[in-house]
Amino acid sequence: MTLPDQMSALVQLHEGYANTQTGPDIDDLTPFLAHQTIAVPKPAEGKAVIKVHLAAVNPSDIHFIKGEYGQPRVKGVPAGFEGVGEVVAGDTPLIGQRVSFFAAGTWAEYAVTDVATLVPCRPDLAEVDAAGLLVNPLTAIAMFDIVKESGADSFVLNAAGSQLGKLLIALGRDHGIAPIAVVRRAAQAESLRALGAAEVIVTGEPDPLGAARDMFKARKPRILLDAVGDQFTADLFFAMPSHARWVNYGKLSTDTPALTQLGQLIFQSKRIEGFWLTRWMKDADPARIPQAFGEIQDRFVSGKWKTDVAGIVPLSEAMDALPEVLAQVDGKAFIDPRK
Amino acid sequence: MTLPDQMSALVQLHEGYANTQTGPDIDDLTPFLAHQTIAVPKPAEGKAVIKVHLAAVNPSDIHFIKGEYGQPRVKGVPAGFEGVGEVVAGDTPLIGQRVSFFAAGTWAEYAVTDVATLVPCRPDLAEVDAAGLLVNPLTAIAMFDIVKESGADSFVLNAAGSQLGKLLIALGRDHGIAPIAVVRRAAQAESLRALGAAEVIVTGEPDPLGAARDMFKARKPRILLDAVGDQFTADLFFAMPSHARWVNYGKLSTDTPALTQLGQLIFQSKRIEGFWLTRWMKDADPARIPQAFGEIQDRFVSGKWKTDVAGIVPLSEAMDALPEVLAQVDGKAFIDPRK
Repeated sequence: MTLPDQMSALVQLHEGYANTQTGPDIDDLTPFLAHQTIAVPKPAEGKAVIKVHLAAVNPSDIHFIKGEYGQPRVKGVPAGFEGVGEVVAGDTPLIGQRVSFFAAGTWAEYAVTDVATLVPCRPDLAEVDAAGLLVNPLTAIAMFDIVKESGADSFVLNAAGSQLGKLLIALGRDHGIAPIAVVRRAAQAESLRALGAAEVIVTGEPDPLGAARDMFKARKPRILLDAVGDQFTADLFFAMPSHARWVNYGKLSTDTPALTQLGQLIFQSKRIEGFWLTRWMKDADPARIPQAFGEIQDRFVSGKWKTDVAGIVPLSEAMDALPEVLAQVDGKAFIDPRK
Repeated sequence: MTLPDQMSALVQLHEGYANTQTGPDIDDLTPFLAHQTIAVPKPAEGKAVIKVHLAAVNPSDIHFIKGEYGQPRVKGVPAGFEGVGEVVAGDTPLIGQRVSFFAAGTWAEYAVTDVATLVPCRPDLAEVDAAGLLVNPLTAIAMFDIVKESGADSFVLNAAGSQLGKLLIALGRDHGIAPIAVVRRAAQAESLRALGAAEVIVTGEPDPLGAARDMFKARKPRILLDAVGDQFTADLFFAMPSHARWVNYGKLSTDTPALTQLGQLIFQSKRIEGFWLTRWMKDADPARIPQAFGEIQDRFVSGKWKTDVAGIVPLSEAMDALPEVLAQVDGKAFIDPRK
C-alpha cells in the first residue's frame, strides 16, 4: 500500500508542561490544538504505521493537551493516546490486520507506534470496543488485581459512573468482590446497582460520610480506587478500616485534600499511593499483559463489559464538536479520522 | 525477694481515647495523671515484675496519656512505656538481672511485663542509655533500614534536633548515607552538622523550600522521615524526586497538611505511609530484633550514640516538675521512681 504524503490531524500547539491543575474538563480546544494538514509519519525501525479507523478520547488525553499529564507535550505532534486501525506499513507480520494500539498521536488519519504495542483484534470485537481497548480496560484489570490482592470482600471506587468505573463494577460483580460505588448524582445510583454495585454512596445526599461509615463497618473494604482526589475522598479514606490503601489514579477535582487523620497512617497501617498505567506496564509481570488483552476482548465480546458511546465526532469537525460530546455526563467520546 | 504490697506511681485518670489531636506538648499533668499509692503488680504466667530504676519519658507517652495514641488508656494503671530496672519476680532466668523493658506502666516503683520483652543490659551500659534503650533507638534502627533499602545516598528527616533525630543523623553518618536535617531554629544547625548532618534546612529562615529543592536536586533522597506532619513537610515531600516516600511517625504539629500535588503519586510513584514501632516489632524478621538490641548497646557503649539528658525528675515530684523539663528544647526527660 502506498501511503499519501499528507494527512489531517489535531495537532498540539504547546511544548512540555503547563504547571497548572485545572482538571479534565474542557470547553474549548483552540488554546491547545489546531486542525492541520501535516506529513504522514514514516515507519522507522521497530515501528509500524496504522491507518486510524477510530480514536478514543480519555480524560488522560485532555490532561495531556493541557500540559497536566505525566509526560511532556510535543508541539506539532497530534494528540490522542489510543485507537483502532489497520497496520499499513512497518517491519511487522501484522500488516493488513486490525489492531488496537497505543501511540503518541491517534487523533489523525495515520499514526506511528512501536510494533511491540500492537494488539491484534478479534474479528467479532466491535469497533468502539477496539478503539478503547487499552487505556480504560487495562487500567481496570490492573487496579482490580490490587483489589484481589487486598484479600477483602469489597472495594471502594469513586467516579463510579465513568466508563472505567463501570468496568470496575462489572469486574467486582463477576469476581464476587462487592463494589462500593461513590457517585455525585442520585440518578446514577440505580443503573450502577443494576450493573453490580453492592452499595452506592451519593455525595449529593445528606451525610454521605455517615452512610459510608456504616457500609465500611459491615463490609471492611481495604482499597479505595480514586479518580477524583477531593476532600470527600480523603474523608472516605480516613473512614475506612485499618490497612486501607488510597490508590489515586485521576484528578477530576481541583481540591487539595487535607490529611486530617495523619495518625491513621501510623496506627492503622494505612497508606496513600498512585496508579499509572504507563508505569504498571513497565513493572508488571510480562505474562500478565497479553493475558489481560485476551481477557479484555473476551469480556467485551461476551457482553460482560460494554462501551457506552456518548458520540463519535468526525475529525474534521472535532475542534468544534468534541467539547459538547465530552460534556455529556454518560458515555465515551470517539474521533473518526476517516471523516 | 519479698515484694511490698503497695507502691508509688503516676496513675492514669482516663479510659480509652480522647478523640483530640493536640500534639505532644504538655504544661499540666493533673488533667491526665495522679500521684497515687497502688498495689504492686503480681507476676502472672509468662510475666515478670521489675523494680524500676529509671523510666524514660517519650513523646509517645504524652500522646498516650492525652488519649491520642494508637492504643487505649486504662484508668488506674500507671503511665510510661519503657525503663530500666532489676527483675525481682516472675517465671524467668533473668531474676536479679538489670534489663531494659517495655511495659504498660513504667512510671512506678514496680512494673509488670511479658518476659519475652526483657532485654538484658551490658554492665558497661549507662543507666540513662538503658532507660531509653528501646523506643527511640529501635525506631531509629527500624526506620534507617527503610532508608538503606531505598538505595539512595541521602535521606531527609525533620525534628532533627530531637533525640530520635540525633540517633538517625549518627546512623546516616556511620553508614555513609547523607542526612538532610530539617529543624526550626538556626541555633540547632551547627551542632547537627557537627554530629553528621550533610545539610540543614532551617524552617525559620527565608525560603527553606527553595533551599530544600536545590539540595534534593543534587542529593536525590527518597525517604522523608517525618515526626511533624505539617504543611511544610508535605511541601518538602512534593519537592523530592520521583519514588519519594513520606514516612510519618509522629505529629508534633497540629496542622492538617494538604496534598497540593496529588498527581505526583501517579506520575512519580510517590507514596505516603506511616511507621509504628509496635507494628514493626510484630512484622519484622524475628532475627532482626535481638540483633538490633546488640547493635544499640554497642552504639551507646562505644559513644557512636549518646543520650542527652534534659533532667531526671523524682517520681514523687514529677506531677509538678516534669512539664518544665519536657519544655526544654534539647535532651530527654527521665523519671526516677526510687525517689
